[in-house]
Amino acid sequence: MKLSDLTRRRAEWLRGTAPMGHVVISSRARLARNLAGMPFLSRCSPEQLSEIAERLRRTLGKVGLPGETFYADVEAADPLDRQLLVERHLISRQQADAKGPRGVAVASGEAVAVMVNEEDHLRVQVLRAGLQLDSCYAELRRLDALLEGHLTFAFSSRFGYLTACPTNVGTGLRVSVMLHLSALKMTGEIEKALRAARDMHLAVRGLHGEGTEPTGDLFQVSNQVTLGKSEVEIISEFRDQIVPGIIEYERRAREALLKNRRIALQDRISRAGAVLRSARLISSEETMFLLSQLRLGLSLELVDGIGLETINELSLMVQPAHLQRLTGREMSPAERGEARADLVRKRLSAGGKAGSGNGGG
Amino acid sequence: MKLSDLTRRRAEWLRGTAPMGHVVISSRARLARNLAGMPFLSRCSPEQLSEIAERLRRTLGKVGLPGETFYADVEAADPLDRQLLVERHLISRQQADAKGPRGVAVASGEAVAVMVNEEDHLRVQVLRAGLQLDSCYAELRRLDALLEGHLTFAFSSRFGYLTACPTNVGTGLRVSVMLHLSALKMTGEIEKALRAARDMHLAVRGLHGEGTEPTGDLFQVSNQVTLGKSEVEIISEFRDQIVPGIIEYERRAREALLKNRRIALQDRISRAGAVLRSARLISSEETMFLLSQLRLGLSLELVDGIGLETINELSLMVQPAHLQRLTGREMSPAERGEARADLVRKRLSAGGKAGSGNGGG
Repeated sequence: MKLSDLTRRRAEWLRGTAPMGHVVISSRARLARNLAGMPFLSRCSPEQLSEIAERLRRTLGKVGLPGETFYADVEAADPLDRQLLVERHLISRQQADAKGPRGVAVASGEAVAVMVNEEDHLRVQVLRAGLQLDSCYAELRRLDALLEGHLTFAFSSRFGYLTACPTNVGTGLRVSVMLHLSALKMTGEIEKALRAARDMHLAVRGLHGEGTEPTGDLFQVSNQVTLGKSEVEIISEFRDQIVPGIIEYERRAREALLKNRRIALQDRISRAGAVLRSARLISSEETMFLLSQLRLGLSLELVDGIGLETINELSLMVQPAHLQRLTGREMSPAERGEARADLVRKRLSAGGKAGSGNGGG
Repeated sequence: MKLSDLTRRRAEWLRGTAPMGHVVISSRARLARNLAGMPFLSRCSPEQLSEIAERLRRTLGKVGLPGETFYADVEAADPLDRQLLVERHLISRQQADAKGPRGVAVASGEAVAVMVNEEDHLRVQVLRAGLQLDSCYAELRRLDALLEGHLTFAFSSRFGYLTACPTNVGTGLRVSVMLHLSALKMTGEIEKALRAARDMHLAVRGLHGEGTEPTGDLFQVSNQVTLGKSEVEIISEFRDQIVPGIIEYERRAREALLKNRRIALQDRISRAGAVLRSARLISSEETMFLLSQLRLGLSLELVDGIGLETINELSLMVQPAHLQRLTGREMSPAERGEARADLVRKRLSAGGKAGSGNGGG
């Protein structure tokens, strides 16, 4: 498969209907694992890096990852394709920018991605639409067992799984949700909510995780501490207390907006749709911001004729690498601004009605 | 006539087709006159003020001003009606805010307004659409002669007509044009152009003259010096050199924009229309700004389905007093924001197609 063909696929986690989809864009769980008997990557010789990459690539090819599977050689990929993988959340920006032998196995409609030679030898990720932490975790455990059938991981009976960075030692598990907190943003309560999250040792980040700023009111919230807590504890605290708490905050903020500032809300949402449908030049930041308003409008039933699926897809498509692969040529930022506006305009007038519905909740 | 009925009338100078209407919104000429044998207003007793106001009101009623004529007693008018007269350029903000007996005679489809007891005993104004300084001046002379048939004005053979403020002494004539300079604004050359205008002793002001800031790229440019120049000199320099010079500046800036920044231009104009058609809350500043973009788009033939007449009318209607008189009730700024958005939305979707055309060339 050519990596640029990814732009023509619809990732499973982008579908429009999902549990708590009105606030939770996606759920993710990932494990960090390292091969026993091999040094951590920072201490590997070039030969060892190649050996690990080759061995894991071969293993991943035969363990039977779910669904259609492909392996992307990130080292050999050109920069635009690397960026494409980042935009689709299949690899981290760190892995894209790193050097040396590295890759990713993608399976199950992009719900599963296994990064090879990122920070650890293996990073296994399961990504699903809406609030599906349980299902992500169950799948992750299944994949972990599958891999352990073929590989021996570095493990200490005292510390648990050993990882390159001490914050991952123990379970090696990190869970996160991508939340759409636009009402909290609009009412100015977002800082309070995020402070509370940080007090609970959660990391709050932007769309592409570590080192990225929130755009379009999308916040990635993830657990920080892995050591000393069981996987079950991590998952259940996050799922049963933390995430529902933030969702409830956002729900109340939306209710308050509807009650007290309905016209201002309608104004924002109506303008957002109008600008997206009429712009001839638009940055990806502005697009994300306006799509975010539409997303809010949709969940409050203030928007007609656009489906959440369209908003999800556009959020992906308007990013630089997607845009350039979709149009089939490299473009300057100014050219991208024009192509982006054209894409959004067409999509919102033509395909905008497909995939309506805003999830349970 | 009730003053609030003004909102239902279309002033002559708002029509969509006018000479140089693509840049010149309107032309105005006015004379300042004072009655011989009476002190200037600042030195009048209350009795003298009443006497002047009464005498001039009576005279204006019988001289035969052109067309349907009415006299508004500004002192007796309620604040909203005074504001309405200001918004229609029939009285100055100074006269609206002043105290004591004062008024205005309005004639000829609002092309003629004669203020009584503003800064001088009489201020005679002729206002027309587009670049029509000659016609304004001719009408002003005719009205001056008409009034001199009934009144004796303070005149010195050395200084000319005597006025309360020395800057008006001499001819008492001021001519001005309201210019739409949005391309110069967009290219950043506006400051240079305005500096040049000021170097030529011109005053550059906002929509409502003295003390107002330019909004929506509309600039009022007027002569400053009256003393020592004949009326004919003032008019002809202004008409033949200054105004055409500025128009030419603006024309070149528009050409350059079309050539070098066509997409950015289309983007702005397209967004402006979309926001005006979709907003639920909008300030008058934003409305003027966006209407200004549409006006530019219209003159560059980048906008379809809206006439210049509609833009002119909306520019008037969205102002606070018009809005409140149109809806028939006093409103808070927030309520006005909503009513304004409703008005604009309806007007641009329904009546938007009437009165197309952007004037000569």
